[in-house]
Amino acid sequence: MSRSDATLTNVARSAEVSPSTVSKVLNGRSGVSAKTRARVEQALRSHGYSPPGERHRQPFIELVFERVESVFAIEIIRGVQRAAVARGLSLVLSETGNRHTPGPEWLDQVLRRRPSGVVLVFSDLPVSAKERLSLRGIPFVILDPAGDPAPDVPSVGSANWSGGVQAARHLIELGHRSIAVIGGPNDMMCSRARVSGFRAALDEAGVPFREDALRWGNFLREDGLQLGRELLQLKDRPTAIFAGNDLMALGVLEAARMLGLSVPRDVSVVGYDDLEIAHWSGPPLTTVRQPLAEMGEQAALLALDAQDGALRAARVDLATSLVVRESTAPPPKR
Amino acid sequence: MSRSDATLTNVARSAEVSPSTVSKVLNGRSGVSAKTRARVEQALRSHGYSPPGERHRQPFIELVFERVESVFAIEIIRGVQRAAVARGLSLVLSETGNRHTPGPEWLDQVLRRRPSGVVLVFSDLPVSAKERLSLRGIPFVILDPAGDPAPDVPSVGSANWSGGVQAARHLIELGHRSIAVIGGPNDMMCSRARVSGFRAALDEAGVPFREDALRWGNFLREDGLQLGRELLQLKDRPTAIFAGNDLMALGVLEAARMLGLSVPRDVSVVGYDDLEIAHWSGPPLTTVRQPLAEMGEQAALLALDAQDGALRAARVDLATSLVVRESTAPPPKR
Repeated sequence: MSRSDATLTNVARSAEVSPSTVSKVLNGRSGVSAKTRARVEQALRSHGYSPPGERHRQPFIELVFERVESVFAIEIIRGVQRAAVARGLSLVLSETGNRHTPGPEWLDQVLRRRPSGVVLVFSDLPVSAKERLSLRGIPFVILDPAGDPAPDVPSVGSANWSGGVQAARHLIELGHRSIAVIGGPNDMMCSRARVSGFRAALDEAGVPFREDALRWGNFLREDGLQLGRELLQLKDRPTAIFAGNDLMALGVLEAARMLGLSVPRDVSVVGYDDLEIAHWSGPPLTTVRQPLAEMGEQAALLALDAQDGALRAARVDLATSLVVRESTAPPPKR
Repeated sequence: MSRSDATLTNVARSAEVSPSTVSKVLNGRSGVSAKTRARVEQALRSHGYSPPGERHRQPFIELVFERVESVFAIEIIRGVQRAAVARGLSLVLSETGNRHTPGPEWLDQVLRRRPSGVVLVFSDLPVSAKERLSLRGIPFVILDPAGDPAPDVPSVGSANWSGGVQAARHLIELGHRSIAVIGGPNDMMCSRARVSGFRAALDEAGVPFREDALRWGNFLREDGLQLGRELLQLKDRPTAIFAGNDLMALGVLEAARMLGLSVPRDVSVVGYDDLEIAHWSGPPLTTVRQPLAEMGEQAALLALDAQDGALRAARVDLATSLVVRESTAPPPKR
């Protein structure tokens, strides 16, 4: 079906509405009830409507956060901005406001704005939203650092398991044999993958995994502070602590400071993420770099390169890398 | 002059170009030489052209950074986003790419996009750019945390001098009488204002200003580290250090840590800005809060509320406030 008046008329007749209502639905304009909209969309699909080509899209890419305040936000914005500049597009930022999935008003706005592509951070979309975007030929990609992508949507993440392996190998090479772990939330796949990779590398090297020194936090500095204090006061004090993200690692640094322990002389600390703050802590943090800017760039390019908005269910995991700074050293002599 | 064909014709005749060239100039489209453009703009002005009203603007606000990576960026984005949501607009981010003032391509893009308002961070505009934006009725406001605004452009900053006073009063109340200062760049008005306010509060309280313990850094953590080491090794070691921004204060914390001094037991440290990292340092930083999000919001609202894009040369300085955390305490007993 082309966008000629004749076929708008066909769809309108099938859906028992006026042609202008069909046009309203296609352009996300208001004044159409949800029920009518669903009927029109059904008719569009059954008539084999194919969405307008790229020339109908506006020259910008839309980046959607739950909340822009996230510590990840600035890195991701930088990467998406890089892709936008490379393609001569501008970048529109929007927020879903503390909701995990964008609401219907957001979707209406996006349909009106007709971006060339959408990158959603940390969110999944309801099936109906996916269908509405696809129908209008607006490609979208999910940026998913949490490592648990919906199978039917293209998404970009990073290699969490390998990141855990890298952290463990570094500590093993330095000579550590008694290592504590503070994982992120137990129910997030990215936390589990990091701890699981860490454990696999210990197994491979024949270093015992200390079940008594495994804790699960909530990715907050306070968790690192509290659980770090606990671990550093164990009778058999670990010589190193691997924290599942940088914020918890900063908490461990603070716990050590409060207990009068020196990092890395008395205890080594490894973080995960390589946020900007990892450069600035005391001491600067050895950490596993999650390439957030590259992930943002990749997600944007995936969306922009989708042919006619066709959804390709693809998953790209970018490599992580270890960044050695000053928070790790050989274990103290006993 | 209205935008009717007749008057486009008038302007075209005066400028000795075709009406479509006049239209190109008004809409920032390409294919017009700089010379021709200048002639057309001159003709528009001499015919008393008044820019299109608000209804011709697109429903977004444009936020322009030199580089999005700045540590200030995320706070400012958050504030401008808040204003955009309040007015039902979306937010377009753009970068001038390491140049202090946006180049001509950026300006052409903005004229094509026709935003409802523009907020420029840390930048000034050449006179010709100001004139071109005004001619199209696109209001713009400069967000200027550096405290040195151009007199003919509306701008938003914060009360740097008062911030310095607040930092000094806090240390004086705790009992400090021997205080070092690491100012930001000597040639930036915001640094000078902070140090000058600090000094005024000492004077007022009859506490001597230690000229021997005044240093000027470059707003980097490394400056705080190096100058902090120097100050903490003075024979007459200061009991407190005021740093001109949070990054330098983090460097001072690191200097103390490396010298085996405890903050705040041996030395108190006060920063300036209250970036997110001030919560996360070891110990969390007492600092002067520069309300960056509120400044972004205010700048956006000033731009959006400008009547028909009329430039009002106004300066708004928002208040700073002291945030007391754990890096300050009474001086050690001698």
